[in-house]
Amino acid sequence: MFLSKLFIPISKDLPAEAKIKSHQLMLRTGMIKQSSAGIYSWLPLGFKVMKKIEQIVREEQNAIGAQEMLMPTIQSSEIWKESGRYDDYGEEMLRIKDRQGREMLYGPTNEELITDVFRASVKSYKSLPQLLYHIQWKFRDEIRPRFGVMRCKEFYMKDAYSFDLSDEEANKSYNKMFFSYLKTFNRLGLKAIPMAADTGPIGGDLSHEFVIIAETGESKIYADKNIIDIDLNQYELNDGSLSKMREDISKIYAVTDEKYKKTDFDNHVKKENQMITKGIEVGHIFYFSDKYSKPMNCLIDDKDGKKTSVKMGSYGIGVSRLVGAIIEANYTKDIMKWPKSISPFDVVIIPSISKNNKENLEKAEKVYKKLKKQNIDVLLDDVDENMSNKFKKHDLIGVPYQIIIGSKSDGDNFEFKELNSQSEILNLDKIQLKLKS
Amino acid sequence: MFLSKLFIPISKDLPAEAKIKSHQLMLRTGMIKQSSAGIYSWLPLGFKVMKKIEQIVREEQNAIGAQEMLMPTIQSSEIWKESGRYDDYGEEMLRIKDRQGREMLYGPTNEELITDVFRASVKSYKSLPQLLYHIQWKFRDEIRPRFGVMRCKEFYMKDAYSFDLSDEEANKSYNKMFFSYLKTFNRLGLKAIPMAADTGPIGGDLSHEFVIIAETGESKIYADKNIIDIDLNQYELNDGSLSKMREDISKIYAVTDEKYKKTDFDNHVKKENQMITKGIEVGHIFYFSDKYSKPMNCLIDDKDGKKTSVKMGSYGIGVSRLVGAIIEANYTKDIMKWPKSISPFDVVIIPSISKNNKENLEKAEKVYKKLKKQNIDVLLDDVDENMSNKFKKHDLIGVPYQIIIGSKSDGDNFEFKELNSQSEILNLDKIQLKLKS
Repeated sequence: MFLSKLFIPISKDLPAEAKIKSHQLMLRTGMIKQSSAGIYSWLPLGFKVMKKIEQIVREEQNAIGAQEMLMPTIQSSEIWKESGRYDDYGEEMLRIKDRQGREMLYGPTNEELITDVFRASVKSYKSLPQLLYHIQWKFRDEIRPRFGVMRCKEFYMKDAYSFDLSDEEANKSYNKMFFSYLKTFNRLGLKAIPMAADTGPIGGDLSHEFVIIAETGESKIYADKNIIDIDLNQYELNDGSLSKMREDISKIYAVTDEKYKKTDFDNHVKKENQMITKGIEVGHIFYFSDKYSKPMNCLIDDKDGKKTSVKMGSYGIGVSRLVGAIIEANYTKDIMKWPKSISPFDVVIIPSISKNNKENLEKAEKVYKKLKKQNIDVLLDDVDENMSNKFKKHDLIGVPYQIIIGSKSDGDNFEFKELNSQSEILNLDKIQLKLKS
Repeated sequence: MFLSKLFIPISKDLPAEAKIKSHQLMLRTGMIKQSSAGIYSWLPLGFKVMKKIEQIVREEQNAIGAQEMLMPTIQSSEIWKESGRYDDYGEEMLRIKDRQGREMLYGPTNEELITDVFRASVKSYKSLPQLLYHIQWKFRDEIRPRFGVMRCKEFYMKDAYSFDLSDEEANKSYNKMFFSYLKTFNRLGLKAIPMAADTGPIGGDLSHEFVIIAETGESKIYADKNIIDIDLNQYELNDGSLSKMREDISKIYAVTDEKYKKTDFDNHVKKENQMITKGIEVGHIFYFSDKYSKPMNCLIDDKDGKKTSVKMGSYGIGVSRLVGAIIEANYTKDIMKWPKSISPFDVVIIPSISKNNKENLEKAEKVYKKLKKQNIDVLLDDVDENMSNKFKKHDLIGVPYQIIIGSKSDGDNFEFKELNSQSEILNLDKIQLKLKS
């Protein structure tokens, strides 16, 4: 893609309404545009990053055998009346009357709807366990939407649901999701800490939040530093190994505000390992057993032919929020560097262009074509602008690798730079190897 | 995927509410489940097909240089008041009041919102032409939703928008999209006929519908038979060739009901080539110049520094509707056969299983593993059911190729069948070649 053709409305001003750095960066680099309070359009740069995150989330859900499906955004109030949550949910639920006066709503969460799908489809224990997920837009009518995509009204989420015959079986599903979440966040270049958490309006008695450390986070964290260095490679996708993983992790203290007790913290964690900080919630998982299946009559025949309420859990990852969270975690000292796995482009070519000399631009186009042939996703900055401005701009766009074509490039050797590092002179073959590694 | 694990609630009954064959098939094979009138969940089988269609649509949009982005589902009424359509639109628009009493709506179409994005982003002719598109859920509060996903309330659409400096330039964008549409429908295995059409509530004076022939269609078609056999390979992606394409096609008579005149039809089309039939609209493109940009003040500096309203067109493909339309076009004589490009699986293995003999199932699992290694997406029917029932079921699920493991299979030779054809005995290498061709 040539930068001059990319639909990327870059702004030089610091947007006044943006209080945190991810929100500022996303507006300045034209990743998003607000359409009304708490509601955004995703322009090509932001869209590309979000889609890459979505794809990693999807792959790691598929890897544990979860099946993708899709529920609609608009739901009938009927099922919410069945579960008893319609009146409880409050004003964050966007309530709608259709042209025939029926009470509808924009789904803020999907426990009721998936329970309705499941009870119409599955009757026997033989079809269990089941893991279903979808990635869909949700809406919460926040009274004070803020922080850009971090706390907005219309947001994109992955929601998975597990269905099992017993608490014991359900625990295995919970562990699989736990494992999938840690793998997902690793691939996104994030250190996400699993913490025992309150269940809140979803209900149930087992719950974990996955939190990344960031000063701008809204969650307070109390944890043993050792939890940051869990080595996932020691575990495998089978019930025994995953049960061991849960056990190992549960020994390391890590809780959110609501679960925090000073005496526990001091008893379990050495002073020098105590970490008190703020974080951003990027995932939340719940086990709530028959909280929805019982009132909604979602019954399964067990091995003895007896009907029993199916045992359910739910598992969320905020896909659109992750874009902001990843920026919060990676944007430091005025330089944003995207993790390789989700960068909007693999590399950017920055030629020094002057009015009377297009030689560098021509060289750049040749390199561009060669890299494209290797399936490398290249951005070429063909804009007629001085190099200092270009570098400032690309410090914000955040493509992690740059090929700079100016005075230092010579024949087949080019200045190659990884953001936050020194540049080096390399030939194109070596550059390709670096980009593909 | 093993069929016993797939979340596919198959029903043996013909659903009473379904009047057309695509709706019947989608309910019977568990592709969708209605959640409320005109609103559906997409279960894994239906979801997979829809995603494959989406991906083909996306690739063909990218191929003409269109850039993907995403607009939200919930819009503010303000921009609709600017364009003048807020009052005009009628009851099909789902109108919403948020908790602060602001008038919002679920987007039935996006001309206003994209114009708002564009006017905030682009100021100069130098950034033109631009083609932007998104694939998003839309809502129309149909008074009588019917025919399943063909005329439902919440539906999935690709919408593209073109931005140009002049009518002449805009015509080039229109032609590119025209070409992209024909290529898209070809890849989906559809014969889509481009027809001069009315512009309706979108406005403008140039418009084409893309219609596939189907008895259950709601559009009446009058066309010269020759239009079915347009050879796209004779055209290339450049303005000259595409202008020639439009010219060639415009010479062949093909119009919808509103544009039909008997005298024109008889004058232009020989009796033996006259085709009067019904069809399903799967795409619709419009050129409406400054209909939205003018009232919404979306101005561009032209080459002389003079401000001028940008010239726009819009281009829709009904992605969720296409699932139904493709079934209508391919489901005949009680057999559904998905086009290879969008089939939910590449091949299904059907072993004959009896209670006391699992030998065929074991053979099937070996074949399954081998094909999976070749990146072939295989469904294995491991359900304990008689072969006659299995075949009936797979006639509906519609995977185009079957490997039947029963009495005719011998060593490395298996019965291989393409739906609607005779089976043959082939070894696995030959089967792989057929599947990959």
